[in-house]
Formats: sequence, structure tokens, C-alpha cells
Amino acid sequence: MRERIPVGVLAATGAVGQRFVSLLAEHPWFRVVSVTASDRSAGKRYADAVNWVIPGEIPAAVADLVVRPTDEDPGSVPLLFSALPADVAKGLEPGLVAKGYVVASNASAMRMTPDVPILVPDLNPDHVRLIEAQRRRLNTRGFGMAMANCSSTGAVFPLKALNEAFGVEAVHIVTLQAISGAGYPGVSSFDILDNIIPYISNEEDKIETEPRKMLGAVSADGTAIDFADMTISAQVHRVPVMDGHTVAMSVKLRNRASLADVREAIAAYQVAEDARDLPSMPERTMLLRDEADRPQPRRDRDTGRGMTITVGRLQPCPVFDYKLVTLSHNTLRGAAGGAILAAEYAVARGYMDEIIGEAAFAAQ
Amino acid sequence: MRERIPVGVLAATGAVGQRFVSLLAEHPWFRVVSVTASDRSAGKRYADAVNWVIPGEIPAAVADLVVRPTDEDPGSVPLLFSALPADVAKGLEPGLVAKGYVVASNASAMRMTPDVPILVPDLNPDHVRLIEAQRRRLNTRGFGMAMANCSSTGAVFPLKALNEAFGVEAVHIVTLQAISGAGYPGVSSFDILDNIIPYISNEEDKIETEPRKMLGAVSADGTAIDFADMTISAQVHRVPVMDGHTVAMSVKLRNRASLADVREAIAAYQVAEDARDLPSMPERTMLLRDEADRPQPRRDRDTGRGMTITVGRLQPCPVFDYKLVTLSHNTLRGAAGGAILAAEYAVARGYMDEIIGEAAFAAQ
Amino acid sequence: MRERIPVGVLAATGAVGQRFVSLLAEHPWFRVVSVTASDRSAGKRYADAVNWVIPGEIPAAVADLVVRPTDEDPGSVPLLFSALPADVAKGLEPGLVAKGYVVASNASAMRMTPDVPILVPDLNPDHVRLIEAQRRRLNTRGFGMAMANCSSTGAVFPLKALNEAFGVEAVHIVTLQAISGAGYPGVSSFDILDNIIPYISNEEDKIETEPRKMLGAVSADGTAIDFADMTISAQVHRVPVMDGHTVAMSVKLRNRASLADVREAIAAYQVAEDARDLPSMPERTMLLRDEADRPQPRRDRDTGRGMTITVGRLQPCPVFDYKLVTLSHNTLRGAAGGAILAAEYAVARGYMDEIIGEAAFAAQ
Amino acid sequence: MRERIPVGVLAATGAVGQRFVSLLAEHPWFRVVSVTASDRSAGKRYADAVNWVIPGEIPAAVADLVVRPTDEDPGSVPLLFSALPADVAKGLEPGLVAKGYVVASNASAMRMTPDVPILVPDLNPDHVRLIEAQRRRLNTRGFGMAMANCSSTGAVFPLKALNEAFGVEAVHIVTLQAISGAGYPGVSSFDILDNIIPYISNEEDKIETEPRKMLGAVSADGTAIDFADMTISAQVHRVPVMDGHTVAMSVKLRNRASLADVREAIAAYQVAEDARDLPSMPERTMLLRDEADRPQPRRDRDTGRGMTITVGRLQPCPVFDYKLVTLSHNTLRGAAGGAILAAEYAVARGYMDEIIGEAAFAAQ
Repeated sequence: MRERIPVGVLAATGAVGQRFVSLLAEHPWFRVVSVTASDRSAGKRYADAVNWVIPGEIPAAVADLVVRPTDEDPGSVPLLFSALPADVAKGLEPGLVAKGYVVASNASAMRMTPDVPILVPDLNPDHVRLIEAQRRRLNTRGFGMAMANCSSTGAVFPLKALNEAFGVEAVHIVTLQAISGAGYPGVSSFDILDNIIPYISNEEDKIETEPRKMLGAVSADGTAIDFADMTISAQVHRVPVMDGHTVAMSVKLRNRASLADVREAIAAYQVAEDARDLPSMPERTMLLRDEADRPQPRRDRDTGRGMTITVGRLQPCPVFDYKLVTLSHNTLRGAAGGAILAAEYAVARGYMDEIIGEAAFAAQ
Repeated sequence: MRERIPVGVLAATGAVGQRFVSLLAEHPWFRVVSVTASDRSAGKRYADAVNWVIPGEIPAAVADLVVRPTDEDPGSVPLLFSALPADVAKGLEPGLVAKGYVVASNASAMRMTPDVPILVPDLNPDHVRLIEAQRRRLNTRGFGMAMANCSSTGAVFPLKALNEAFGVEAVHIVTLQAISGAGYPGVSSFDILDNIIPYISNEEDKIETEPRKMLGAVSADGTAIDFADMTISAQVHRVPVMDGHTVAMSVKLRNRASLADVREAIAAYQVAEDARDLPSMPERTMLLRDEADRPQPRRDRDTGRGMTITVGRLQPCPVFDYKLVTLSHNTLRGAAGGAILAAEYAVARGYMDEIIGEAAFAAQ
Repeated sequence: MRERIPVGVLAATGAVGQRFVSLLAEHPWFRVVSVTASDRSAGKRYADAVNWVIPGEIPAAVADLVVRPTDEDPGSVPLLFSALPADVAKGLEPGLVAKGYVVASNASAMRMTPDVPILVPDLNPDHVRLIEAQRRRLNTRGFGMAMANCSSTGAVFPLKALNEAFGVEAVHIVTLQAISGAGYPGVSSFDILDNIIPYISNEEDKIETEPRKMLGAVSADGTAIDFADMTISAQVHRVPVMDGHTVAMSVKLRNRASLADVREAIAAYQVAEDARDLPSMPERTMLLRDEADRPQPRRDRDTGRGMTITVGRLQPCPVFDYKLVTLSHNTLRGAAGGAILAAEYAVARGYMDEIIGEAAFAAQ
Repeated sequence: MRERIPVGVLAATGAVGQRFVSLLAEHPWFRVVSVTASDRSAGKRYADAVNWVIPGEIPAAVADLVVRPTDEDPGSVPLLFSALPADVAKGLEPGLVAKGYVVASNASAMRMTPDVPILVPDLNPDHVRLIEAQRRRLNTRGFGMAMANCSSTGAVFPLKALNEAFGVEAVHIVTLQAISGAGYPGVSSFDILDNIIPYISNEEDKIETEPRKMLGAVSADGTAIDFADMTISAQVHRVPVMDGHTVAMSVKLRNRASLADVREAIAAYQVAEDARDLPSMPERTMLLRDEADRPQPRRDRDTGRGMTITVGRLQPCPVFDYKLVTLSHNTLRGAAGGAILAAEYAVARGYMDEIIGEAAFAAQ
């Protein structure tokens, strides 16, 4: 077994940052050696700086790390997992990539940069090729990878299966999103107890755009993604659920398909061979359930250690063609877990070979 | 001021039955003189039989009534408000109408009977005319009126406004329904705490059908409704909210309309003149809010004493034409309050003149 | 009917400030003419500055007031209701009193000042006499009144009844406090959904001290309160409830009393004659319920427009003498409503006669 | 490794029954070969009969078992885990013991039978000796073991530590109990959303009695428990929390102890050597946390796979001596997990040697 790659977590004290720290604690390939946070926390022990809000305890190996200020050099680590808020990410992440770091970011900052992939190894593994164009453009060994918006994550997998099999022309999406998606402290209990909020800033725009990039094809010259030709409409809601985004979808297909066809397209969904054995890849990317009342966030979010998308309520739609409901764990698959999975794939495909070598050296 | 009309409440000990009892306590036209429940409760004082689960106290005038068994004669009352469960309603309500009672029912049992109106005075007051055909068919002075399904209630008002102004071709509906819609004990806390259930039995069918009757026109011969020519698709969810159904809708219009046109059509919604002064009619049937994050169930459900529909999030839809979100109080406007409002209108229009006279007499 | 007294609300944009504005909208004696908030909001229309989070709409008469900065002169109003946070209150309130304002404060800042009454007209009306000593000390016509901590409010009424009848030696108190007690945004939903937090900063200290002042007697020289001679132990919890603090108590009496005696002492609780007709005084200060499962926050908090304390679960205690549970609405009785009630009493007792005259003049 | 002991689960389709099935799925010593339920479910496949409401999937090995009727012979299994409701348990469990079965019951039916131990291996392992007296009395190889009431479970461990070190004279207990403690469907969401219920039938009695047996000593003749000499007062509440009972306690000691002494007594709590290596024994029975805001149900209930009791908020009590708060997982440690742990200990101590041999034989 080779040595674990030293990594850093940017904004490690927030809710998603904590998920990164937690998931990486026992990771077979990566080990956290650097954590950053805002100036207020910088200089403290991680365990003293963090208000740990997720399940489990602070991993011992990270508890004693001294928090670095986010706007300084994160140190001798080739790979950075970023849980930065959108506005900070916008200012910092491109500079880090330019300095030669690999940045796997949970923020939206780089998602729409043409040669930055929204990389999901069990969805669009070929998008990894954008890295080459990105490196050429920036003339650096570093590169950036973006993660899907947490509510898009549940939607794109069935869309991928249906788009490949029958073509998807349009989709209407309504989300019921968990409070953990807003981070910590995030949503005030005053707003959400016994209540629904039919609004999340910018979220509808993202859901109407990002899946089209994620489901698109690498352009002929390898420098961008040709967006998938489908129209998406989204209405979003915050609901009093801790974790797990529910997405109700109605899909208009380009080609006729029976219910059995659609069922089969989803049930038979396959992951690319070179992505199947990644440490964070679940046994099943997408699980189709036939019970009338599933998926449910509390009962299904932890399937596949939070990395499996659960699909259910598949039925014909009187207006479009088919309706279904998906459920994904928003801070695991939809955030930290997804970013780690993407980084694993980049490593597996050799995109970090050169810098890992040096970093491992530097870290000794 | 004339004497108040004696009325009965069927299934008066359930959650909707309690709403009837509560709303009728101070009603200027009606007074509850008869309450029925299952055999288990029959013979007890109402206050002893009921497990009062709604806000406020049991009205003194009803507390001491002796509960009658639901399957026996409800007594000398011309008007019955029915909170019977669907299966019981199916067996009992038609018989009560045949005996000469007026039955305003919250159950789905009679909704699809052609000459039974789903009567909403501020939506389709002309449907009241079906009563004449119904009486002729049954050869009785009694008649039945059905109420809208509680989740359809929020949807039909904006659909009415848009259909009249621009024609509605299709609508995609996703509901987030409060737990009180399932009655008492209804939804187990084990199922809904920190959770969403994407299923309510038969609910999607109802939402895809009933609004088309409610928005339709009385047929030429006055014996039925010509359903509105629109296609509806529904996906329903139970959410951990006490009261107030949220409905996210996307609407495809037949005629082009600007956002301003659509806004105006909803904002200018008018109630028929002869329905405006009913005791339970709210000042505004439909309230359009412009804040980005409204409507919200906890903050908007009690508007207009729970009888106003709040509409918000009006915006263009990339797939259809316009998206919006509505909110209505499911046990007030969507159940007991709606049934009382319909009965008020039937009284105001004179449909109960004859039987009221006799009943008032019999009740003395 | 005399002219309404112009009043100001300090920190009017917060959750408690909104309650003040809402309750005062229709008040027969007071009308809001001045609202203050932090510098960020100052200069804006109230309706634009506030994020209205409580039920109902912003009162029209206040919506258009221009928000003043809290640290400037609140204007020509004799009476200020303060919803200031504790630290700001500490710096500002004494100065306002010194300038001649009457300050009815919801903050803890003045509670322990010897000649500032924690005035609850249906509990300790004679404490109003401290005002005279306070005025002498400060040489001003203004004076300060403090309100009870919101969780003490539920406890002091039964303690008063029992202390007067039998003497209370010790009491063990455990609270289950609603999230609205923490203001807005207050408690993060991340912390409280599907959870309990067994901690509220400084709250246990307050509950162990303040009731002893509230239940004490005015000292012989009229300049302070001789604290009640009872020992209180408190354990506090934040619970996922919107409004309504539940308090479980076990009481050790000085004199033997039967369960019937204790029941009677609570049921027969009387309000001083000169306090009974205040506009905000509920019909019953304390309501004793006999059902096995009451009081409950959602079902009992609005009793008496949120001003009645509901007591239940009265039973013998194997360790002390009697156990009971109380419930009070924490932002009505326990905050804004309580402060308004106290101000009403001070007015009724003539403590504001002189300054009202001048202020009414100045406000013209 | 020896063959796994075949066991049965009584009332296997309920919420606690499901916990048994789930926990036993991977158990190194036991394997489920028999499941029972009410007549309605009898004859069906377990997977078809059960409405699976707990996390995870139905274990494959149990899914295909045919459900037996609870009132018939549970088959050739030496050991039965009972999740029967109290009234059914009362009628059935003694008969099963008389027939030679070992019954580890979660019900209260046998708890107060003098020679039936409420066996908690890391609390009162010596109580296992009652089995000998019980067998003699019943003249059978079978025996019954009772489990602690789920809310007593969190309380008894710190009481044990303090009682041994300093003597406990009295304790005041207030519980905040999770909804899963009421089983499925159990608590209606109508009752508990945004609410607290200060009542659970018979629960206060149990908490005031059972811990005294659990903390008592085996009598000189080995046929009963001499109850611990302490007085307990309990007030119970149902709260909107999924899993995890919070218990606020105030303890009066017989001997003086400093805060440091009390801390040490709890922190140094030791499990008997012969119980330490049981499969279900957590690494730590009791974990003392020093953070001001712990324990919390959502964050602490899964500690030690739900078998560790978390204690916090330890502080002096103005009325008694010390206050603290404990948290335990009510359906793991407080129900199924606790029963399995007890059965493991009985096996480890050899109390089932003889019958296991035959049963293993019979099961082949």
C-alpha cells in the first residue's frame, strides 16, 4: 500500500468542512494535514476552533492541527478540498489553482468556467479530460474541479439514464431541501419549524443550468462542454428535514418509451469500469425502489454510506411522459463525499501523478 | 335577525369534525344541535367522547350534546356537515340526501357524481345550479354538495384566474401537505419527524381530476359539469408542517401573456357579487405576495381567518409559461371552512328556504 | 376617552420588538410613535428595515415610521418599551431613565438593581412602590421597570399561590423552552431539529435568583425587596417548540398541605382589585387543568391571548411535597405582553401622570 | 467458533421487534430463526408482513422467514427476545418460561416479579444469580429476564456510581423522551409536532420504582432483590425527538462529596470483568462530557453504537447536592440492545449451556 496523499481542507470548520474532515479520517488514499478557516479561528487547534455539528467525534489526527488562515498559503499539500463560501471561493480558488494546487471545490465559483469539469465519476467520467485543456490554458500543473450543486445531484442520475436511452427534452423539477444544505448556523429554527420556505437564493438558476453542463459532452477540441440540449424548470423549497434532498421530477422524453423501458433504463444504470473501484464509490450509484412511499429522506439518505441516489415513485405523467422522485444525501453525495469521489477518480486516472510525487516528498 | 338554522355534524369527534364544531360555535346563521360519531362514542356527552386536538376549547353549546351513532337518524336538522371518512361517507351520504337532508360533505364520496357540485362560492358559484338537477333526479328536497380536496383548493384559484384570462392547457403540480390533512391520529410521528413522505393514497388522482370539474362549466341541460379542458399532473408529499398545504405549480397557457398580465389576472381576481357578503367569505379570496420567500405555511395559513389563498413566487417558467406557489389552510379553507362557506351560499341563494322553514319548526 | 400615550419601542426590529409593535397596534392606551434599531436599520422605513417573523402583518401605523438609531434620543415619548439585548440594555437603559424616560424593559440589565421592580401586576403589584425610591435616588421623573425572565414567568405564579398559603422552602425546576425565546435568528435549525439542547447561557442562574425577588416583599424603607426565603434549583433545556415554555416543578412546602389544599390554593388565585381591569390582563391569570396530559405548549400557549399561565399535572411528589407542570407563552406573557401589562399598571396607579401630560403636549 | 444459537423474536414486526431483528442480523452468537406477530401477520413472509420503520434494510436471513402467530409455540429455539406489548406479555411470557424457554423481555410484565432480574450486565451483573432461584421456583430450565424501562436506563448508571461512592438518598428526575419510545405508529404527529406532552401512561411510577430494584442487592437467600434505599421522584415528557431519552436529574447524597469527587466517581465507572468482552458491550458504558451544551440526543445517541450512556451538565445543585443530565438511546441501549446484552451475559455465565445444547440439536 502506497503512502496516503497529504491534503488540505479549506474552510474546515464549517458544516461541509467538517464532513470533509470526517470522511477523510479513515480514507485509504488521503490524509488531512492542513486545515484552514477564517482569521477568527486561525492559530487555534482545530478541536478548539470548530463547533462540531455533525455526527461522530472530531478525528484525532485532525483535532490537534493548527488552523491556518484561509487567505494564506495552505502549505505543502498537492490537493485541496474546498468548502469555502461562494464569494470567498471566487476570490481564492483560481489563485490556488494558478499556484499549482489541485482544488476540488464544493462551491459554485468555478462551475461555469468552460474548462473546469463538474466531475461526477459515475455520471460523466469523460469530463475529466477538461483538466488537460485547463492546465494548458493556465500553464500550471494544478487544476480545478467543481462539484454539482447539492440539489442537482439527485436529479442528474435518472436524467442521465433517460437521456441516454430516450433523449430528454424537458424536465420540471421541484425540490424539498434539507436544512443542512444551508450550512451552519444556516437556517434559523424560527423560520423552519412547522414551516416551509419556498425560496433558496440562486438555487433555481443553478438547477436549471448546471445539470445541462454535467450531462453534456466534451467538445471536439476538448476545451469545454457542449451542454445537453434539454430545458429545465426548477422550484425549490427548504423543509424541516436534517439531511437529504428530495427532488420531484417530471420528464418529457424525445422518444417514446414504455414504463418498463424507463424502469429498465434506471435499474440497469452502469458505472464506467475505471470508476467502479474508487474508495468512495457506493455499491450502487442509483437504487430504484418500488414501494409506494419511497424514497424518504430519513430512511434512504444513508444508503450506500450516503453515496447512493434512491429513486422511486416512477409513474406515467399525464402532462409529460414520466414522473419520479429522487433522494440524495446533500452533505455526503451532494457535497463532501462527491468532491472526494471526484478527486479519487482524478488520482486513479493519473492526473495527479506528478504533483503527488513532489508533494509527498515535500510533506516528509 | 332571523333564528339560526339547526345543523348537524357527522363524525364530529374527528379532527375535521372538531373544526366544524369550532367554526360553527359563533356562526351567525347556523347552530349545532346534533353531533354523530362511531358506536364507540355514541351515547356519551360530546365533551367526554371527543379527544379535542385543535386550538381553543370545546364550545360550551356543543359540549353537553349527546353523541348520536353515525348510522342512525341525525335528527330534525335540515343541514348536515359531514366529516365522515371516505368509505363510510360512500355508504351513508346518498341515503341521507334521499331522506331529504342537505349534506355538505368534506369526503370525496360524492365529488364525481355528475349533478353534485364541488361548490366553491368564490370560484364557481354557478355550479350551485346542479342542485336543481340533482333534486329532480332524486325526487327529494335534500341535496348533496361536495368540497374540494384540500390540496386542490390552493391550486384552483390561480388556475381559475389564468384560465379565464389566457386559457390553461396544462399544469404540473407538486404538493407539500400538512399532517393535519390526514386527520387524527393520522400520520405517525415515527414516519414524519425529520422526514418527507412522497405519497398520499389516491391523492394524485384526485388532484389530476377534481380541479377540472371545479373549473368546468355547467352543461347546457344543467345536469352535469363539462370539465375544463386542461391536463394536470400531480406529485404529492407529506411534510412535517402542522397546517397549510403548499402547492408548487407550473402552468402552460393557451395564449401568450406577459408576467405583468399574469400578475394582474391574479391580483384582480373578483368574487361574484352575491357571494361577497357571506359570513365565512374572507376579505380577499386570493392574496398575491411579492416577497421572494412567501408564501410560507406557518406565516400565511391564517390569513383571512384561514380562508384566504396566498400566492407567491410568480415567475416565468423555462419549460411552460409561469411558475408560482400557493398556500391554503387545509382544515379551514380546504375542509370545514370551505364546506360552511358553500352551505352559506346555498342558503343565500334560497336553495334551503323550504326545508329550513320546516326544520326550524321541527326543532322547536 | 383620553388620548393615547405616545410610546417608543427600542430594538423594534427584533423578534420581541415585533411583538411589542404588534401588541401595541390596537392598544387602547398606548400608540407607537417611535421605533429604534441598530445603525444598520436606522433611517429606513420600519417596514423596509424589519424582517417580520411573527404572525400577522406589520401594523400600518408603524410601517411608515422612520427607524431611529438606538443610541440616539428616542424622541418626545414618555414611555419606552425595550427589547434591547442584555449588553446594549446595560449601557443604554439607565441613561434613558436618568433623562426622564420611563423604561419598561424586557432585558435582564436592571432586574437586580434593588429599587427597580420586576413588576408583574397580577403577582406583586405592591412592588410598584419601588418606583418612588428609585425616583428619589435618581432625582428624575423617569423610572425603570424590569420584566421577569421568560422561563421564570411560568414558575412564579404557582409558587406565589403556594408560598402564601403554605410557605415554599425549596423548589426544583426543569424547563423545556421554546426557540422563540432565543430571538431571531436565534437557535440554528441545525442545532434543534430532532434534538434537545440542555443549556441556555446564564438561564439557570436567573431562574434560581429572580423569582426570589419577584416573590419577595418591599423592604421597610421602601428602597428594595427582601427576597423570598426559598431555595431554587434549575435545569434548562431548549426544545423544538415554536412558542411556549414548559416548566416541570417539584415543591417542598414549609407547612403540611393536602392535595386538595394545594389544588384550591392554585385554583382560587386572585388578582389585586386595582389590576383586574388593565387592558392586557387576561380573564384568568392562572388556569388549572385536570387532564392527565396538559399543559401542552401548542394547545395551551394562546389561552387568554397568551397571557394566562396554564398549570397541570398536579400530584404528590415522593421526594418533596408536590409536583406540577406550568406553561406560559414566552414572547407574550413572558416578554412583550408582560412589559405592556406592567406599564399599564404603572399608568393606572398614577406613576406616569406628570410626564404623560408633558409628553402628550410635546408630541403634538 | 461455535455454532450460533438459534433465537426467536416475539412481536418481531413492531418497532422494537425490528430493532431486535436488525441488531441480531450480524450477531456473532445468535441467529434469528423464528419470528412471531399477531394473527393478522401470521403466515406471511416477514418481509411482507413488516412495515420496516427503522434505518437500514430488512436482513436477508430474516426476510423470508414465515411469521408465526405469537400465541402459538415459537418453535425449537432456546432463547426468545420479546418485544410484546405489556398486556400481551403478561399473558404469554410466564407460560413460555414455564415451558422451558429463556425469555429476555423488553416488556414491564415480569420486572417486578421478585426472582426475575432486571439484568444489566454493566450495572448489576450479580443479579443474574436470581435465575437460579427462579428456576427452582418454576422447576424448569427456562427463565425470564426483564429489561429496564427505557427512561430508567439513562438514570441508573450515574445513580449506581454515586450510590456506591457516596450513597444516594433522593433523586428528582425529569425526562424528555423520544417518540420512538412509544413504538409504531405510537405518537400521532398531530400531538407532538411543535409540542410537548407532559405525560406517558404509568411511566412516572416505573421510574420511581424500577431503578430501586436495579440498584438493589441480591437478598441473603438469593430469591429476591433488596431494593436500594433511595427515594425517586419523576416527571416525564414526550418531546419531538426521534431517538434518545434525555434525563435531567438532581441528586441528594448521603455523604459529602466535592464536585471533583463526583466527577471522578462517574468518570471512573468500571464494568465487571466477566462482562467486558460481551459482543454488545460498548467500549465505554458511561461517557462524561464537559461541554456546556451536552448531552444532546441527535449528537450523542449513537455513541458506542447506541449502547453508551452520555452524561453531562454536572454541577452543584442549590437544593440537593448535584445536578446532571444523561442521554441514552432508547431503542438500542434502552430496549433491544439492552436485552441482547443481558442474554449475552447469561450465556457467558453458563446459564444457558444445557438448553442451548439441545436446542442447537433440535434446530438441525
